[in-house]
Amino acid sequence: MTDPRFPDPRTLSDIDVAHRLADAAREVILPHFRRADLTADNKDADGFDPVTVADRAAEERMRTLLAQYRPEDGILGEEFGPTAGQSGRTWVLDPIDGTRGFLCGTPTWGVLIALSGAAGPTLGIIDQPYTGERFIGSPEGALLRTAAGDRPLRTRSTATLEEALLFTTFPEVGTPEERAGFEAVSARARLTRYGMDCYAYALLAAGHIDLVIEAGLNPYDVQGPIAVIEAAGGVVTDWQGGRADQGGRLVAAANPTLHAAALEILSRV
Amino acid sequence: MTDPRFPDPRTLSDIDVAHRLADAAREVILPHFRRADLTADNKDADGFDPVTVADRAAEERMRTLLAQYRPEDGILGEEFGPTAGQSGRTWVLDPIDGTRGFLCGTPTWGVLIALSGAAGPTLGIIDQPYTGERFIGSPEGALLRTAAGDRPLRTRSTATLEEALLFTTFPEVGTPEERAGFEAVSARARLTRYGMDCYAYALLAAGHIDLVIEAGLNPYDVQGPIAVIEAAGGVVTDWQGGRADQGGRLVAAANPTLHAAALEILSRV
Repeated sequence: MTDPRFPDPRTLSDIDVAHRLADAAREVILPHFRRADLTADNKDADGFDPVTVADRAAEERMRTLLAQYRPEDGILGEEFGPTAGQSGRTWVLDPIDGTRGFLCGTPTWGVLIALSGAAGPTLGIIDQPYTGERFIGSPEGALLRTAAGDRPLRTRSTATLEEALLFTTFPEVGTPEERAGFEAVSARARLTRYGMDCYAYALLAAGHIDLVIEAGLNPYDVQGPIAVIEAAGGVVTDWQGGRADQGGRLVAAANPTLHAAALEILSRV
Repeated sequence: MTDPRFPDPRTLSDIDVAHRLADAAREVILPHFRRADLTADNKDADGFDPVTVADRAAEERMRTLLAQYRPEDGILGEEFGPTAGQSGRTWVLDPIDGTRGFLCGTPTWGVLIALSGAAGPTLGIIDQPYTGERFIGSPEGALLRTAAGDRPLRTRSTATLEEALLFTTFPEVGTPEERAGFEAVSARARLTRYGMDCYAYALLAAGHIDLVIEAGLNPYDVQGPIAVIEAAGGVVTDWQGGRADQGGRLVAAANPTLHAAALEILSRV
């Protein structure tokens, strides 16, 4: 006789574990969202890189669950850094990607979760607790889960930059040189939009937009999105066409043709 | 015996009428949102100012309701222009403010509705159909209505630019001169964020952010937001401190002190 709230860890698949982490993060974070008394500590002496009690509490809760369900795996979290494992697998956690948006009340931040091995992330979640949208990518495919059910995610077939809808966090991120690279692609695109945090990756995987270009990223910012976008048919690399899972500069495209067109410009930076 | 679906127009208050318009627009627009086959016509020969079947159908539905409930009032709508009235009152309609965001799948566009007289808008709605949030301002006060109920809206007391969270649609809008004015305020602000369409006005009214600075606006872009923000305690003017209800350059602030600080910079443009 087992209590479903406390399952035998051996019966949980990796995707089950990922969903339990995302469920726990939602439960911890949502009560803090749009609270008038929410305050932020600044992690950046030269700018404003806020962290809240919600970021820290959500990562702690996810770490507690991983210690129970996957004690052999490593963890890399934005707030509490790396924890070594013995399996060669690492859970990569960003409890609130887009804390600045979170502080401003915009529904565009997200909980990012990835499971990574030597070849990079193979399973990822982008969860938006306020809208109740969970974007999931794994070897079994990509889907959007909401209260209304699941539906498959599939990227678009847009073939040219001139037709492309481009999203970015520039001008909030990047060096002047990186900004010039971004702007060279933006000048060709049909439309450029700003400020969506990790929600832009979800929109790309869901087939609503075509390109995301970013710089100055950390591994925990990108690994969940990479797994979701790749499972939905998209391509994610750095600006030279190499792996993007360690962060830095990133270009995510709806398909290989569009990716090549963007890379031709960005690789000159 | 009356059918509640077809009430006697004389029994409906202005706020009842405004809610019926917003309900109708939601019903018309939501089925088009994130549809893969949604296409847009471009209204701007020099850029990309899209309009969709959803914009047009929603305005038509609202106009039909106004012909029934308020035949004596005028109408100014984004898609079908002005319709003269006899009452001195005008319903100002933007069926989808942020059509570019709508096309990209972001939940930051909105249905804007205002009722205006000689002194400007006195009643306004910002409705976000996908998140199910309706922000309402009227002489009776300001509130947010969701499926969970109503709660009052109140702007923040942030007193200095250095503490302020600033939102804008720059760099997508404005002349170079206007951009310089915006950037002079942005350089002082704690945080600047981009790309939220009319949702930024709702966040200001709800007390999550402190300032919105825009340029190149039309009357239907601003009149609903002005009524909501003013009813919640905020101040909205043009960059010289005059009325903003005819569009152009706009500064919306959480309170008079912060408004004065922003205006001191912007009025030099």
